[in-house]
Amino acid sequence: SEPTSPEREVLSIEGLDGGWRLACQAYPTTDCSVLLPAESMTASQRTQVDGLDVAVQPEPPVRAYEVDLWVPTGAGPGAYADSLLDALNRDQRLQCRAVDVEVLRSQSSLAGFREGRCQAAVRHDEVVAVGPPRSAQLGLAIDLGTTKIAGYLVDLSTGRRLSAKGVVNPQMTHGGDIISRIDRAAGSPAEGARLQKLAVGALNGLAVDLCEDAGSRTEEILEAVVVGNTAMHHLFLGLPVGQLAASPFVPVVSTALDVKARDVGLRIAPGAYVHLLPNIAGFVGGDHVAMLLATKVWQTDGPVLALDIGTNTEVSLVTDGEIRSVSCASGPAFEDYHMKHGARAVTGAIERVRIVGDEVWYQTIDGALPVGICGSGMVDVLAQLYLTGAVDESGRMNDGHPCVRTRQKRREFVLVSGEGGHGGLPIVLTQKDVRQLQLAKAAIRTGIQVLLEAGGCSEEGIKQVIVAGAFGSYIDMSSAVAIGMLPSIPLDRFRQVGNAAGAGARLALLSVSERAQAQAVASRVRYVALGTAPGFAQTFIQAGYLGRYRIVQGERRDIP
Amino acid sequence: SEPTSPEREVLSIEGLDGGWRLACQAYPTTDCSVLLPAESMTASQRTQVDGLDVAVQPEPPVRAYEVDLWVPTGAGPGAYADSLLDALNRDQRLQCRAVDVEVLRSQSSLAGFREGRCQAAVRHDEVVAVGPPRSAQLGLAIDLGTTKIAGYLVDLSTGRRLSAKGVVNPQMTHGGDIISRIDRAAGSPAEGARLQKLAVGALNGLAVDLCEDAGSRTEEILEAVVVGNTAMHHLFLGLPVGQLAASPFVPVVSTALDVKARDVGLRIAPGAYVHLLPNIAGFVGGDHVAMLLATKVWQTDGPVLALDIGTNTEVSLVTDGEIRSVSCASGPAFEDYHMKHGARAVTGAIERVRIVGDEVWYQTIDGALPVGICGSGMVDVLAQLYLTGAVDESGRMNDGHPCVRTRQKRREFVLVSGEGGHGGLPIVLTQKDVRQLQLAKAAIRTGIQVLLEAGGCSEEGIKQVIVAGAFGSYIDMSSAVAIGMLPSIPLDRFRQVGNAAGAGARLALLSVSERAQAQAVASRVRYVALGTAPGFAQTFIQAGYLGRYRIVQGERRDIP
Repeated sequence: SEPTSPEREVLSIEGLDGGWRLACQAYPTTDCSVLLPAESMTASQRTQVDGLDVAVQPEPPVRAYEVDLWVPTGAGPGAYADSLLDALNRDQRLQCRAVDVEVLRSQSSLAGFREGRCQAAVRHDEVVAVGPPRSAQLGLAIDLGTTKIAGYLVDLSTGRRLSAKGVVNPQMTHGGDIISRIDRAAGSPAEGARLQKLAVGALNGLAVDLCEDAGSRTEEILEAVVVGNTAMHHLFLGLPVGQLAASPFVPVVSTALDVKARDVGLRIAPGAYVHLLPNIAGFVGGDHVAMLLATKVWQTDGPVLALDIGTNTEVSLVTDGEIRSVSCASGPAFEDYHMKHGARAVTGAIERVRIVGDEVWYQTIDGALPVGICGSGMVDVLAQLYLTGAVDESGRMNDGHPCVRTRQKRREFVLVSGEGGHGGLPIVLTQKDVRQLQLAKAAIRTGIQVLLEAGGCSEEGIKQVIVAGAFGSYIDMSSAVAIGMLPSIPLDRFRQVGNAAGAGARLALLSVSERAQAQAVASRVRYVALGTAPGFAQTFIQAGYLGRYRIVQGERRDIP
Repeated sequence: SEPTSPEREVLSIEGLDGGWRLACQAYPTTDCSVLLPAESMTASQRTQVDGLDVAVQPEPPVRAYEVDLWVPTGAGPGAYADSLLDALNRDQRLQCRAVDVEVLRSQSSLAGFREGRCQAAVRHDEVVAVGPPRSAQLGLAIDLGTTKIAGYLVDLSTGRRLSAKGVVNPQMTHGGDIISRIDRAAGSPAEGARLQKLAVGALNGLAVDLCEDAGSRTEEILEAVVVGNTAMHHLFLGLPVGQLAASPFVPVVSTALDVKARDVGLRIAPGAYVHLLPNIAGFVGGDHVAMLLATKVWQTDGPVLALDIGTNTEVSLVTDGEIRSVSCASGPAFEDYHMKHGARAVTGAIERVRIVGDEVWYQTIDGALPVGICGSGMVDVLAQLYLTGAVDESGRMNDGHPCVRTRQKRREFVLVSGEGGHGGLPIVLTQKDVRQLQLAKAAIRTGIQVLLEAGGCSEEGIKQVIVAGAFGSYIDMSSAVAIGMLPSIPLDRFRQVGNAAGAGARLALLSVSERAQAQAVASRVRYVALGTAPGFAQTFIQAGYLGRYRIVQGERRDIP
């Protein structure tokens, strides 16, 4: 169809000439082919599964035993499951009391019973799976993020990681940020159920793919561990979430939970459980506990800061054996949403930027033609703009800079002029984008400052800053310091650990001792409510400024 | 439509003239009204819920506590469920470890949490329900029979029975006898699932009706107990049943089970369990255990016989502290199926018969016009036919008797000549019906004889015969003895106890000690396989004869 007036307004002449249209305005007038650009496909998104890999002595909650069954003759009392329990308790000296009803229902259990020999997976006093002898003993660890989900398949008996995969959280289509999802779910039980199904559907898909990669079957997954922030935890379990969005932000439950996988719709071994790590508070969830568990940061004297940067950023400060945690609403600025040319970390996303004179140098993921700017690119470009004087410390764009131009009375920095990729359209960072980034980084910096003050620590005294999370792995730390997102301390004190929440989930999957530690750590954490912390507003204002500085009692002191 | 030739063949002239048609042949040619005769409506069926009512000191597996919750402020760790567990463990000195996930999901739990005061129902270490203070604490006991289901609502704290109701098992439409249902379920998983859904659907309906009668809500039902024969037990749980129909007839499980109500689709309190009493063997199920529990027959020295007469009849003999049980396929002859004019125990069913000379005197349920003959009527009419010489001891009808006529070369006894009720059609007992009844009663008598021989007891030595079951309550014992269905001993040794399985289910519902007793009894029982018992065939042949006699080593000795 012909371009409409909204299209003429939004798309530049070059854009329209280059064939770009708005999907919400154009419609086909004849049969047509639809090509999906690579950057819109989640398959090509950069994996967010890598990170810490901490070894642990396997001590899994589920163990499998090969059992020779007495084959009942029918001439007297005797049933298959009773014979199985007898054999386990007698030969393996266990104290099993029951076989899960779904295991009893399964035709493949029956086949094993009739065969007279099978492998039984036992969890505490319950048989959770029956399969043929020498079945694999698998575990599934899931880091259920607001935007991304990372899954890992491990061998419970050896601790070996068999496969790993990341996917986009399909709940994204029902609200990019967690608050809009809470609003939806709280508004109608059907919406809550839909969000629950979307999350568990993604996990079921991941389980199938991970098993395919490892040459195994989902019925061999005997236990799962899921970590996520408190809202994701509640949405995944189908718990009420409305109260999480209003003061006093009280979770339904915080302690660790063991839930039958079928009670959330997860299709693994018939009687298997999902373990959920404990939450700390309304906005500090099991994913942060998992990160603390994986980094073992709570075993240090400190002061050590540990951050998991995302749509919501959780920060912990460990000092003198105390753990304090805070949650900052950093928003989705680093995750492509609400930014003019934001992009997820897909092929072609700009991830590194340097400005020399009026020349802009950039690097894209996979070296492809540029499609937008991903989170680490955003931090880089903001740092470069500040360092070259294209924006000042308040974040205001400088008209005089050669790369800053004004379009429809709005200033923007032209990162890609438009000759290649992106349909011939330029890629820009607008003044509004800069403000979004300032808000995001101010939230994080404020969280850090509030913790330091509560713990009586100075910035200079921080011995180590652990930065976790997929996004955190790719940020250039010098850029993060240059824009005042992180404190100005020597760069060798920063440690980027990748997906530590996933690593913590794997630890909890493999070891009951690690689960006990996780519960102990969660109980020890002192949650600091950011909004009501002393001097919050003053600190937040100062933390919006760009540049290297310290904030002491709400005052900003530049560092040359 | 016009009568078809099958209709002309099957229905007599009088029947067709009286307006009777076959539903499988006639079809409406214009709009028409459909009137359902009262006898086809299950609502008017005689209740099968009455029977023993054994008092027991309530010692229920679930107890409710009123709890004052600490209301979390959000300023630190704290969640509703954690606060509930703290309060229960601290104030009530319990050792609760978890709140069921469905309880966590429930909006009404959340309302209670936010109110700061609620009633929590605790089972072992788990909270299975949260409701407003002073919620009722109810239990549901179910006797799940092949043809009938009896339900009872009780107050768990006082032991008081609040309401009772019986319904027809809707699985009847998918197979009148248990073997045809097993065949269906074993043939296709979808059929198995359908049978499971039918049974649980009936239980859900019963729960709603029972609660309505008692002025309460199904969410207040904190525990259920279901007893049934082994096949019904397996069908109710959705377990594989194919192996129950073939030698060696091995159940999947025999020990008592605790299953989450939601795992079978039973809609009661969100986290509630269903307890299933142990089975004894392939054809002696938890309903017989419940009957033994209710009658406490196993505490006597004996010899005592305990029978539960139905489509399948279970018999136990207690002697010298030993319990032996047998299962007899008595078939559905007493339950209206395969009999020409059989009827369930509905209004108008003939339940008592006396023949004086050539005059037939009968009594119908509710004194209504006769619609057919129910089980107790069948036993009565056969006894009367034998005693008046209308049939001989081999079961052959006597042509010369005034009430015996021949139609299409087939002999039949005319019970009702056709002037009133039954659409003007006569009600008859055919020669074929007599053979069916002989097979049914022979099966029961053979079971008794096999047990007596296994236990080394004589018939004369039997101190008591306990006859349980709805049908067993209405049989005239003298008629049952006259046809040789039961041993010929003084009538004052017979005790008809009604639905004792239901009474046993209520005991198990109310008391964990009773549950332990049930498991102990089930373990003590020695199951006797009827078909492989010595002299089975010989005994079975003799047991088919009518009249009062003893069977000693396969020989029949008449008693004058």
